[in-house]
Amino acid sequence: MLKIIPLGGMGNVTRNMFAYETQGKVLLVDCGIGFPDENMPGVDLLIPDISYLENKIDQIVGMILTHGHDDHIAGLPYILPRLGDHFPIFGSPLTAAFAESRIREFQINKRISILDYNQSLKLGPFTVNSIRLTHSIPDTRHLVISTPEGNVYHGSDFKIDLTPIDGVKPDLQKIAEFSQKGISVLLSDSLRSEKEGFSLSEQTLSDSFEREIRTARGKFIVTTMSSNVHRIQQAVTVAMSRGRKIAFIGRSIEQNIKDASTLHMFNLPRQGIIDKRDIHRFPDNQLCIIIAGSQGQTGSSLVRAAAEEHDFVKLKAGDKVVFSSDPIPGNETAVYATIDALSLMGIDVVYPDINDNLHVSGHASSGELMLLMELVKPKYLMPIGGTYRHMIQYRKLAVKLGHPEKNVFVLDNGQTLALENPQTAKIGATIQLKNIMVDGYGVGDVGPVVLRDRQAMAKDGIVVVILQLEQKTGKLAGKVELVSRGFVFMKQSQDLFGEAQKLVEEYLFKQSAKADFRNTRDEIAGRLQDFFFHRTNRNPMILPVIIEV
Amino acid sequence: MLKIIPLGGMGNVTRNMFAYETQGKVLLVDCGIGFPDENMPGVDLLIPDISYLENKIDQIVGMILTHGHDDHIAGLPYILPRLGDHFPIFGSPLTAAFAESRIREFQINKRISILDYNQSLKLGPFTVNSIRLTHSIPDTRHLVISTPEGNVYHGSDFKIDLTPIDGVKPDLQKIAEFSQKGISVLLSDSLRSEKEGFSLSEQTLSDSFEREIRTARGKFIVTTMSSNVHRIQQAVTVAMSRGRKIAFIGRSIEQNIKDASTLHMFNLPRQGIIDKRDIHRFPDNQLCIIIAGSQGQTGSSLVRAAAEEHDFVKLKAGDKVVFSSDPIPGNETAVYATIDALSLMGIDVVYPDINDNLHVSGHASSGELMLLMELVKPKYLMPIGGTYRHMIQYRKLAVKLGHPEKNVFVLDNGQTLALENPQTAKIGATIQLKNIMVDGYGVGDVGPVVLRDRQAMAKDGIVVVILQLEQKTGKLAGKVELVSRGFVFMKQSQDLFGEAQKLVEEYLFKQSAKADFRNTRDEIAGRLQDFFFHRTNRNPMILPVIIEV
Repeated sequence: MLKIIPLGGMGNVTRNMFAYETQGKVLLVDCGIGFPDENMPGVDLLIPDISYLENKIDQIVGMILTHGHDDHIAGLPYILPRLGDHFPIFGSPLTAAFAESRIREFQINKRISILDYNQSLKLGPFTVNSIRLTHSIPDTRHLVISTPEGNVYHGSDFKIDLTPIDGVKPDLQKIAEFSQKGISVLLSDSLRSEKEGFSLSEQTLSDSFEREIRTARGKFIVTTMSSNVHRIQQAVTVAMSRGRKIAFIGRSIEQNIKDASTLHMFNLPRQGIIDKRDIHRFPDNQLCIIIAGSQGQTGSSLVRAAAEEHDFVKLKAGDKVVFSSDPIPGNETAVYATIDALSLMGIDVVYPDINDNLHVSGHASSGELMLLMELVKPKYLMPIGGTYRHMIQYRKLAVKLGHPEKNVFVLDNGQTLALENPQTAKIGATIQLKNIMVDGYGVGDVGPVVLRDRQAMAKDGIVVVILQLEQKTGKLAGKVELVSRGFVFMKQSQDLFGEAQKLVEEYLFKQSAKADFRNTRDEIAGRLQDFFFHRTNRNPMILPVIIEV
Repeated sequence: MLKIIPLGGMGNVTRNMFAYETQGKVLLVDCGIGFPDENMPGVDLLIPDISYLENKIDQIVGMILTHGHDDHIAGLPYILPRLGDHFPIFGSPLTAAFAESRIREFQINKRISILDYNQSLKLGPFTVNSIRLTHSIPDTRHLVISTPEGNVYHGSDFKIDLTPIDGVKPDLQKIAEFSQKGISVLLSDSLRSEKEGFSLSEQTLSDSFEREIRTARGKFIVTTMSSNVHRIQQAVTVAMSRGRKIAFIGRSIEQNIKDASTLHMFNLPRQGIIDKRDIHRFPDNQLCIIIAGSQGQTGSSLVRAAAEEHDFVKLKAGDKVVFSSDPIPGNETAVYATIDALSLMGIDVVYPDINDNLHVSGHASSGELMLLMELVKPKYLMPIGGTYRHMIQYRKLAVKLGHPEKNVFVLDNGQTLALENPQTAKIGATIQLKNIMVDGYGVGDVGPVVLRDRQAMAKDGIVVVILQLEQKTGKLAGKVELVSRGFVFMKQSQDLFGEAQKLVEEYLFKQSAKADFRNTRDEIAGRLQDFFFHRTNRNPMILPVIIEV
């Protein structure tokens, strides 16, 4: 039996990682990070939960990376140390370069091998073939994973762009060829299943940049996802044709352009590129700046420039900033704050709300999703890479094409798919998945308790109560100290704290004989909670500390 | 000289309140609340800063409310107690009813007077006339405020809907009539200045509801903004025509429908409405539920129903939930979490991403904004009700119509406009405005320090260090206690805390003679901060507490 096990990313868009398991061997696909939501304050990122693999490490025969986006590769530095070095990792040339860059930052020296396009790759019981697709990053692949139980089409993030910037079109012929061998299960991107029709070609951006640069009186500044090499290429080409010099700003953009140029996947015209330190030497109307920070990320180059805190990029009225990206859900506030800050500086800001030709999605709309279903002709379907509402829309599309609803598996986190033979798939065992959070150097040491405490303190602050109690009698020995943070402004609330102090002292005074200190702690926390809630309608965390004297 | 003073809401969309001041008298327009952003954890709401009015309270001659949305009226219960009871407040009938409901919740018994549509209202040096406009709440007004220095058109939130549900069209004739008397300044809604063309009529929703109810097999559930009386009316009418019984769920919806019905602004067919406690007595396909929670608000009826925690609304597969609203910026995560939860239950969820006929905006698009400019023909313009990017887009529209750019005032928070005579307006004095935050019972007691502490603790938690020091010598007398919350899971970090404890003890041991306790506190906080950052890459708040023994 073949098990298809999503280790992260089902029901979420990010943190993608899949395990294929048969005959005691495991093949992994992708190893991405996820992004914390507003209920995970302070958390830097999320990684897939690989505890299921922990006693199967020797069985891993390899890992394939489908493309170079962080939610498919950036988990490697955290996960690899736990999986060991005994299996090969494969990716297309750009994907391999991006993945090596990621792990090199962590001083991990694993080589990522190049996935040969024209040959099958044999890894234990798995035979892997890759298929060129288009996406918002070049060199994206789909996989056909053949096993004794049947063939699975692993259709990770994609769109069908028939006029891609690099001319490398989706290999529809190869899809059809494998389809003829029979595909049991199609795993498919489902993120834009809500959208009608086909996503627009990346190429439409050239005209948009052309239109915008024509009316730019000062610096022409473009911000986009830093891995969108083709988008950046178009901005560069348009700016060059207007005689502008180009500077790249932002660590990730600079690194990505370097990697892509080395592979001849980016056309870097040497005479047109300037170092960021030389920006001030050119007149504004001869400059084009490609800058990171399109999501309004704190500390990003664009956000620093908008706050007039960037060493090299000095923005001023008359400059034009083009946002060639939509806000990712959850980033809206940050993006619009950046747009407002730039607007306030008198900068001409152009963004999708006022010009909807500035961004095209890298994901397939419903038309392309249905086209892939028709090309692959699977028996079963399993949407991935979307949240539940996207997966359910995907199922509706499949039903429209005549697939029985029961053949479309909309799985919850931790649910697995079991393929017994090419004709028989069903929901398999459920494995327990946890949110593995990375916070600073800590991986997995922030759990539900720590998060709950952070949320509580964020909402109403904390009150620390220090009780010096006689070890033998439990009697109060010294003043009760109350200190608060994030609750009320203490200096203006001395009455409130005076009363609280009295309340604690009176409780302790009434206590007879030696008390159970744990009980004392709970009682005092409860009483103070009630008191403060009654008086302020707030619920600060109460932290009683007993000092035994 | 007439001063136009925005006390809240400039550069933000909400918290609207304007003061008009001339000849030693003050007229107020609107008194709304604002909503905290993600940098204000725990804050319930924001209100306008009225400190500018504090020594002018006797000079207030009246207040006019333009419409019944919370960001225009719900500040009243917080502001009125500080402004006194000596001046009248006016609004259209529905606005007055909504405002009275708001202040009655706070046991304030102020009457809101009805603004007579056919007569001028004289308040000190101000003469106020009102003009019917359309918006996402019925009975919305614009104002013409005439003063010795000139006439101001106060064009608060509006759209121009020529086919409104109640047949009460925008009174374009009256606008033209006042325009002929000469308008010096047009203050105008600018929220949708980015959108081309005209906003769609509210009436288009009936067809959408009709289409959706036709395919609803189980309960038909509609959620929308609870003040959108006309939207609710359309859902009710469609449901009734299909023989479904209607139940209203949610305190705000129930109250609003009651207020609107009393004023005959809502057609409540008695035989079609059922009590929420009777829902279970009807088959699913004979039910229509209008439910609050379209923004995914925590604790709202819809969110509780989606969590299967609502007493009366039991959702199940086959029911259909229609989101007739767009997520307000900042609410996206909550809205989509609700949609995902409902999708997961097998409910048919319909929302603007998959059907863009489910919501129309209540705000004017650029076409309507330009139409109002042409009808009013002002000398000066001042966009309000938008963020900076919207105001700047508004300015572009005005320039397109031939207004000189310098005649369009895009003001920052606290900047005022001074009208010397009908022909001369300029930017006046700047007043200092603060964020006045409401948190629980506290109004204004949460300031920047408390917020900063909350943010810090949300991010990396807190470490409390308790030092018992001899009062005379400053020597350590007892063990150093470390307690943390929201930082790391303490039980798994005993080594870390052991080292930290040692670090503190060693520092104190080296201290000679009597130390300055304040200095000791700062030194220990600094050392622990460095230590924890070095070891964990996190920055918990360090709170040293010295117990003198």
